[in-house]
Parts: sequence; structure tokens; C-alpha cells
Amino acid sequence: MNFIELLNDQQKRELEQQWEVLSYGVSSIIPEQEFKQKIAKSIKNQQPLKVKLGLDPTAPDVHLGHTVVLNKLKQFQNFGHTIQLIIGDFTGKIGDPTGKTATRTALTDEEVKHNARTYFEQFGKVMDMEKVELHYNSKWLSQVDFSEVLKLASTVTVARMLERNDFHNRYEANKPIYLHEFFYPVMQGYDSYALSSDVELGGTDQEFNVLFGRQIQEHYGQEKQVVLLMPLIEGLDGVEKMSKSKNNYIGVEESPRDIFGKTMSIPDEQILKYFQLVSPLTIDEVNEVKQQMEKGALHPRDAKMMLASALVAMLHGKKAAEESKADFENVFQKNQIPEDMPEVVWDGNQTVAIVDLVKELGLLPSKSEARRMIKNGGIRVNQEKVPDPATILEVKDGLVLQVGKRKFIRLRLSSS
Amino acid sequence: MNFIELLNDQQKRELEQQWEVLSYGVSSIIPEQEFKQKIAKSIKNQQPLKVKLGLDPTAPDVHLGHTVVLNKLKQFQNFGHTIQLIIGDFTGKIGDPTGKTATRTALTDEEVKHNARTYFEQFGKVMDMEKVELHYNSKWLSQVDFSEVLKLASTVTVARMLERNDFHNRYEANKPIYLHEFFYPVMQGYDSYALSSDVELGGTDQEFNVLFGRQIQEHYGQEKQVVLLMPLIEGLDGVEKMSKSKNNYIGVEESPRDIFGKTMSIPDEQILKYFQLVSPLTIDEVNEVKQQMEKGALHPRDAKMMLASALVAMLHGKKAAEESKADFENVFQKNQIPEDMPEVVWDGNQTVAIVDLVKELGLLPSKSEARRMIKNGGIRVNQEKVPDPATILEVKDGLVLQVGKRKFIRLRLSSS
Repeated sequence: MNFIELLNDQQKRELEQQWEVLSYGVSSIIPEQEFKQKIAKSIKNQQPLKVKLGLDPTAPDVHLGHTVVLNKLKQFQNFGHTIQLIIGDFTGKIGDPTGKTATRTALTDEEVKHNARTYFEQFGKVMDMEKVELHYNSKWLSQVDFSEVLKLASTVTVARMLERNDFHNRYEANKPIYLHEFFYPVMQGYDSYALSSDVELGGTDQEFNVLFGRQIQEHYGQEKQVVLLMPLIEGLDGVEKMSKSKNNYIGVEESPRDIFGKTMSIPDEQILKYFQLVSPLTIDEVNEVKQQMEKGALHPRDAKMMLASALVAMLHGKKAAEESKADFENVFQKNQIPEDMPEVVWDGNQTVAIVDLVKELGLLPSKSEARRMIKNGGIRVNQEKVPDPATILEVKDGLVLQVGKRKFIRLRLSSS
Repeated sequence: MNFIELLNDQQKRELEQQWEVLSYGVSSIIPEQEFKQKIAKSIKNQQPLKVKLGLDPTAPDVHLGHTVVLNKLKQFQNFGHTIQLIIGDFTGKIGDPTGKTATRTALTDEEVKHNARTYFEQFGKVMDMEKVELHYNSKWLSQVDFSEVLKLASTVTVARMLERNDFHNRYEANKPIYLHEFFYPVMQGYDSYALSSDVELGGTDQEFNVLFGRQIQEHYGQEKQVVLLMPLIEGLDGVEKMSKSKNNYIGVEESPRDIFGKTMSIPDEQILKYFQLVSPLTIDEVNEVKQQMEKGALHPRDAKMMLASALVAMLHGKKAAEESKADFENVFQKNQIPEDMPEVVWDGNQTVAIVDLVKELGLLPSKSEARRMIKNGGIRVNQEKVPDPATILEVKDGLVLQVGKRKFIRLRLSSS
């Protein structure tokens, strides 16, 4: 049935509006026409779409990379659609049965619940969690029996599984793939069936898994979900995908100062992508930034300041955004020291080589690193550049040590 | 623990005796030493071994190819060990979920039970079925849940599965392998665990599947079974493995005359293998035959007569063996016609070309086949060779038509 044709003029405008926002910034919509029909059907029947996002129950350390998807969910929310968050606790409770990694032991119910809560709190910084449905997939997957597993398995060929990038590469490299790993996409697909999802979101690296849901739903004679693949955002280095393991991320729970400072360090080419995908700005606002930058009316540095303020405001509120902006201007633009900084009691020798001091305080990992930094003018004592790596300091109470752009420490002498 | 060392002298002789019989004619024992230990342990503890054979619940048409394994089971039985027959009804009840073959639909409980009974009756011709344990694997496999399936799947790699001959060949030829097919060996292995089997029998073509039981048992911390691979016997052509699909088999339910005649048609090189693997003769008796043949004291034709008599006696009793032997001598050695043969009422034209008659009666598939056979002197009417493919017959009541060595038909004219 063609639902678009069934809409009246007002409904058609509503469809156009939803389509514009929901398709914005998406890497691919599979398939586009089905998505448009689903929105039209939802408008016609006044029935919200069920929009699914699956989550790994381990290590929920949310960063701006996740915000790409969360912002999209929020847009769905704004149109009244239903968000289905699924905690993949079924495999989490099993653990990694191969025992390959010592760390991936089975999670207890308490751990799973704790992690789910942590997701909730962190997601709550970006979207409205009150209207979100939370599901644990052990509820239905633990009920699936062997004959059902066989039927599911019969819907897919081994060759198709081995087409998946990481499986393919491991197979070619003679690295073991354990048979149960083939079931991760199957389980993820079964989740879509269990919740009759209309839409599933995922990063472009999740294409294989999220598409699998369509196959499983079809197997059960259910209307197939549509898949929205979101772009992966590069980390602070501007090259690698933002991730915890690359340590190139901005965590949603970091301090306003860190979020502001880290945002200021992204390469200029990433500015617009961050605006589009992780900032809370509307499409019109982002387009305005884009035009201003193209005209040269908005300097990249100022655009980044706007972006950094918007991100801090999103994660910590307006006041924190203003403060961290003022702070940043103080420190980096006027080269002043920040108003407050960590204080450390120094109980070592009062006469000490600068490189020893920096190393001892853990500000840099090695003395050779400290020497290099000094040669580049990167270390200051009481705002003055240290000119020579061989410098010997007399440590006085209140001395301010600055390493790089953003590390400040005030030294206190021990009272003894 | 080394059980062999724990045996007294009498028990050691018992061990030697069992070993000699049970290892006789086996293609490979994996691993040999474990098997010897299992027998020793069984003697020491007066605990019979559990000897497993898995059976496909579909199409139980038992032929002499199966007898290779059945004779071995019978030898185990003779030493007091326990036979576990497993009907693989779990997958049978699921059917082939891919729907690749229209015929392999799910079997009902009644069909499974019927097929099991048929196995029982046919196996009963070779071994004592009273002492046999019969199991249906749906009993335990239907209880296995998804998380257990994942744990089982984690014990094997995809690469290992693809090493299996038929999977490997299909993968290389880009023919689809459905994921559930990987679970057939897993399920077969689980059966061994469920029944704590000590020994599993299978044809050499079953090596991958039967060895899998060892892996599953180890996963559950159970003592691993030993695997006895039995040679595959060639069919009447002496080349291909005996099988229903090649139509080169001797079925255990065939008539004494057919069994006798078919046995007489095997190539001479197969005689000893048949004696060793499918006849009920003892090792000593078989060795005697072998020696006599090597000396030239026993002509291959006479050896085959012995073999054929032994097989008919095994399947139909002594009397039937004597009758079919006498019958065979009548027909083939003195070129007489058998005492009784099928009668067919001929209501076609009384004047008919011989090739039409043979085709109409379904004795040969085509007229060109009939012409070829006549040229080779293979068709007789009332014991006289038909010399010319163009021969026209006058059909008379009681006419005896012989096609090849063993097809006889007596024609009756319809009384109308």
C-alpha cells in the first residue's frame, strides 16, 4: 500500500518536515522508499514508529561518538516516535564462552543493571530518557530453544556470514572465528523481531548486523525494519574513529573545561561535521554557520568556540558553557593562568632540576619528553617560558607550573 | 589410570580375545590405546561398554552396507556390551528448515516411530534386538536452550567446520552451506554426551561427525568416547559405495533368490571383503576361506556360492538358503528356468515385435535397450535365444520370457 498517496496536504507537509530532519546527516537509509512509507503510515495511522538502538552491556563509557546516534534518536523523539533501547544482556550474562579474554567473564544481574543505569544517566545528558523504552534481550532470547535456533540458522549461509568484514579478514588471516560468534547478528536481528521494530539505528560499521534484522523479521513474516546508518565521527586527531581505546574522545561526563579545551583542539576540517552530527544545533543554525565560514565571515577559531560552548551547554548547561568559555579565553587567548587549578604538595628537594620535577609530578612520562617540551617552549614557571632543559629550580610555595596548553599545577610546600 | 596392569591373567586373556574380535575388520580405531583401556576397565569393573550408533530417521531401507556396522555391534553384544541405537528424530521433526528439498518435510511422531520400528525389524535380521537400547534424541536436544547452544558453538571454529570434506567442497564451489548444517555434528556429539557413550561406530565417511562427540564430551568434562570407523563396502558394481541411490545394493528384505543372485554377481576381488564385513562367519572361518582361495583349492565361483548361502541363511534362515542355492544351480548352471516366476496377463496384440513386448512389460526401459540386449544374446523366449532384434512374436499362453540372467516372466493371455 502506498501511504504517501493517502495523506492530505497538511499530512504531506508533516511528512516532508519529518523526512528533512530524520534523513539529515544520515550516511545511508536502507531502503529510502520504505522509510518514507513508514513515516507516512505513522502519520496516517497516528501510530508512532518504534526506533531501536542496541547497546553492549559492558563498559558504558559514553562519548561524543555516541552522540551522533543519540541526537538522531532525539529527533525521532521530537516527532513523537518511540525509542527502544535494548541492553544486550543475554550474551553479557553468558560471558565470552571461548574464554579467550580473561576480562569478559559473565556479568551478574546486578552488574548488567548497574551498567544499564549508567547508560541511562549518560544518555540523559543528550536526550529525554523519560519517554524511552528500556528492554533486556535476555527476556526473549533465553526462551529460544534449539529447534528455533536451527530454524534461524537456516536463514543464512556460511558464505554470507564470512562476507562480513571482520569475519572475512580473520578467516583470510587464519585467525579463529568461533561458531557462536556467527550468532551475534542473528540475536541482534531477533531483537528487532521480538520488539517489532520499525527502524534500527547504528553506525556505518554496524551495517551487517542491523541489516540482519530485516532478514529475521522476514523469516517470521513481520514487516521489515528500515535501517539508518549514522556516520562515524573522527576523534580529536581528525583521523581515527572516536573511541575509548584510541584515547581521542570527548566523554560526556568530562569536566566543562576539558570538553571545551578538547573541542578547541579538533582539526578545522572536522568543525562542520561536529556541528552537524554531535551538536544540538538545528539544521538551519548549522547551515548558517556553514555559510558564514564559507564567506570567511566566521573564523574557524570562532566557529570552534561556538561549537565548544554548544557542547558544554548540552552536557553541563548554559552557565558552565559561559564559564568555561571565559576561562578558555583567559588562559589561551590572553595567556593568563586559570582561576583555579589543582594544588600539589611538594615534599621533595627544594632545589630540583625542572625535568626531574615535571617527571616526579607525573605531568610528563619521561625526562626526555620534558626536555623536548622545553625546547619547544611548552613549559612555563609562573607564566614565564623555561628557556633551557638544564634549568635548576628553587621551589617556592605557590609556584605555578604549566605544561603544554592546558595542564596547570600550583605547588605547595609541605608544612613540616 | 592404566587398567590393563590391574587385570589378572584370566582377565588379560579375556582382553586379548575381545581386542582380537572387536578390532577385526575395523578401518581405524581412534585412539587405539584408549579403546584397549576401555575394554580393560570394563572387564575389571564388570561394567559393559556403551556402544553407540546414530540413525537417520528417514527412509530406513537397510542393505548389506549397513551390515558392516551391525555385525560389529553384534560382536560387542556377544561380549555383553550395551548397544545404544539413537534415532535422530530431533532434526527429523524439524525437517529441512531451508526448504531446499520438497521431500524433506517435518516427520510426524507417528512417522518417526514407524521408521524406528522398521529399523528394528530389519536390524533384527542381523543382531539380537532384545538387548538393544533405543533412544530418540529429541528427548534431550529439545531441552537445550539458546545459551547452551552458544556455549557448544564456542567449542568449535568455523575453519574447523569448513575442513569437513563436503563443506569444504561446497564452499569452494560457491554452493550454499546453511548455518544450521554446522549443527549436525554438534548435535550428534551432544548425543554421545547425553548417553555417556564409550564407543561410537560409523562408516569412514562419518569420521568428522563421530569424532565430534569426543570434543563435546570433553567440553562437559566427560570421559571421551572411542571411535571405530568401519570400511564402506562396495556395491554390486565393485566400484561405488553400496547405496540405495546407486541401485547397487542388496537389501536385507529382498527375496532369497535376489540376495543369492546378486551376491553371485559381485566381482571376485570383493569376495573376501564381503566375507569379512557382511557375512556372519567367524574370523577363523573367514581365514580358512582365504587360505583355500589363495591355494586355488576354492574356486571364486564356489566361494561366492558359500557367501551367498551364508547371507541368505543370515537373512532368511537355513532352509531358504538351501532352496535358493538349488534354484540358482538349476537356472544358471544348468540354464533351466526357475520353478516359479511372476506371471503377467498380456492383453495387448497377440502378434507383437519382441522389442515392443519387452518395453511394454517394463522389463527394459527402452526399445533401443532391448535391441542391444538381443544383439548380446541376452533375451530368451522359452529358453531359446532371440537371434534378431526385428523378431516378431506370436504370443501364446504360458510363454516364458527371460531378460538378462535373472528376470523371468510367464505370460498369460487374458481370458476375454
